[in-house]
Amino acid sequence: MAVYTEVTDEELNVFIGTYDVGRLLSFKGIAEGVENSNFLVHTDKASYILTLYEKRVDPDDLPYFLNLLQHLAGKGLSCPTPVPSRDGMLLGTLAGRPAALVTFLEGMWVKRPRVEHCAELGRAMAELHLDGLDYEGFRSNALNVGGWRPLFDQCRDRSDSVQSGLRAEIAQELDLLEASWPADLPSGVIHADLFPDNVFFLGDELSGLIDFYFACNDAFAYDIAICLNAWCFELDGAFNVTKARALLKGYAAVRPLTDDEYEALPTLCRGAALRFLLTRLYDWLSVPAGAMVTPKDPLEYLKKLRFHQTVDSTEAYGLER
Amino acid sequence: MAVYTEVTDEELNVFIGTYDVGRLLSFKGIAEGVENSNFLVHTDKASYILTLYEKRVDPDDLPYFLNLLQHLAGKGLSCPTPVPSRDGMLLGTLAGRPAALVTFLEGMWVKRPRVEHCAELGRAMAELHLDGLDYEGFRSNALNVGGWRPLFDQCRDRSDSVQSGLRAEIAQELDLLEASWPADLPSGVIHADLFPDNVFFLGDELSGLIDFYFACNDAFAYDIAICLNAWCFELDGAFNVTKARALLKGYAAVRPLTDDEYEALPTLCRGAALRFLLTRLYDWLSVPAGAMVTPKDPLEYLKKLRFHQTVDSTEAYGLER
Repeated sequence: MAVYTEVTDEELNVFIGTYDVGRLLSFKGIAEGVENSNFLVHTDKASYILTLYEKRVDPDDLPYFLNLLQHLAGKGLSCPTPVPSRDGMLLGTLAGRPAALVTFLEGMWVKRPRVEHCAELGRAMAELHLDGLDYEGFRSNALNVGGWRPLFDQCRDRSDSVQSGLRAEIAQELDLLEASWPADLPSGVIHADLFPDNVFFLGDELSGLIDFYFACNDAFAYDIAICLNAWCFELDGAFNVTKARALLKGYAAVRPLTDDEYEALPTLCRGAALRFLLTRLYDWLSVPAGAMVTPKDPLEYLKKLRFHQTVDSTEAYGLER
Repeated sequence: MAVYTEVTDEELNVFIGTYDVGRLLSFKGIAEGVENSNFLVHTDKASYILTLYEKRVDPDDLPYFLNLLQHLAGKGLSCPTPVPSRDGMLLGTLAGRPAALVTFLEGMWVKRPRVEHCAELGRAMAELHLDGLDYEGFRSNALNVGGWRPLFDQCRDRSDSVQSGLRAEIAQELDLLEASWPADLPSGVIHADLFPDNVFFLGDELSGLIDFYFACNDAFAYDIAICLNAWCFELDGAFNVTKARALLKGYAAVRPLTDDEYEALPTLCRGAALRFLLTRLYDWLSVPAGAMVTPKDPLEYLKKLRFHQTVDSTEAYGLER
């Protein structure tokens, strides 16, 4: 929640002058996002988000993300649309950082999503998957099954400091998922991080999807699994099957699940839970003492994992075949 | 540079519903200000700044600040204008904090002010002083000459850890200023913190003044002295008399200085330098080790103080009587 790179009025005026976006009126650093510096820019034409990509983002990935947003916006998906500079570039340089200007999406993320929001999310995610089918870029998913063991290796010896027995529990689940992870599911561009704070609503209507900086090519149903975990558990840890059903039905109304996807969903949900358990565990163990950042609780995802371990069919998520 | 209080979409919708400002479209936490939490709010009518007042602001002072902004805006000064709620209140409650909604001012602060900017600042400050003449509120200045010794008392014993000899140098200056501080200068509402980041420009034209949370009743010329220090020194520490002349002439074109003010200005500049030297010294010595906040350098103001000690007449600031 920070702006990492300071931008002066002079630098910004020069930068904005390379775009056909009207006269610069104001810019404010936004206290959002942990990876990049974001500014809300007003011109006399419209509002924009200016992003400076900080060190955690691989510059080689930026064309994948920016071309994807342009592709999706071209298909009519509501997402930030990169604005090309006068000479046609989506990526520029500002204050020594790679930088891009994208359209501003009105809307607010919903702290406590209701059933209607889950249905809207399902529809939008399916549209995203379909709209990405003919996207030519490719980026593998570093946080899929192949990436979990290296991550676990970095945390393993300290896992039990977070909760006794955690190390053995993760090790067992990892063995099982590596052995049973489904292959050859329908794949394409997935968002891979469609948490509520990346989905904007105006009232109950979805107004846009943002933050595509984990987007990659992977199984569509893995994206669904990430969302079931992020949207369908209540604060007390209970799985809300009504929300899950709404999400899945919303999705299936746009892009029906194949039999393989239907079969695989409980396993994918376990994998998606393990993925966030591991990255949160890593962050938890990596935060220096006294830092002002509060890392997210990894154990929230241990509870979600345990729930999915009890599920033997996608019917338990409210979707009949 | 932070948002201290989280606001949910639900809370905000309820809060905004108590104002006649149209439909809420978006809100973003702004990475600006160190005292309060600020959000940029878009509705289908306009843009607004929503401020949640955090612990460092005395709630009893808020009516002074908000009524002042309303008063000044009513006089035509370009400043954030508090929006009254449907039942006429300027101050509400949001997320357990006192909160106010003000109009959004377009414009950007200038990192490296030029002579033209200083002239504009002088004019705007004089207008502020005149516009405030019939403001009925009163708030004494806790950071005037009477407040410096208590502040110094809290830093004295550690002053020399910042720079050898600093303790004696401040003590001597404080004695001198307490003995010679001018009384009975023309007084009224002053901004008291008109640093470049609180003054917005569109091109070379001043578009507004913001952040009135140090505003108080004190000598007008003390406000001028604060600005001479904040705007007219170069990065290398040199005093730029061309900028000072522009600032003073801009001011005097709207509100001519009295003879007493003219006489007192060098002393006021020393006092204004000591005030920021002391508050920065206090902050410098109070920041916990390892904190992510970088306090401002107190010694910048020691250098400014030393410059003013060499000045024996306001003529040295470029203004002839």
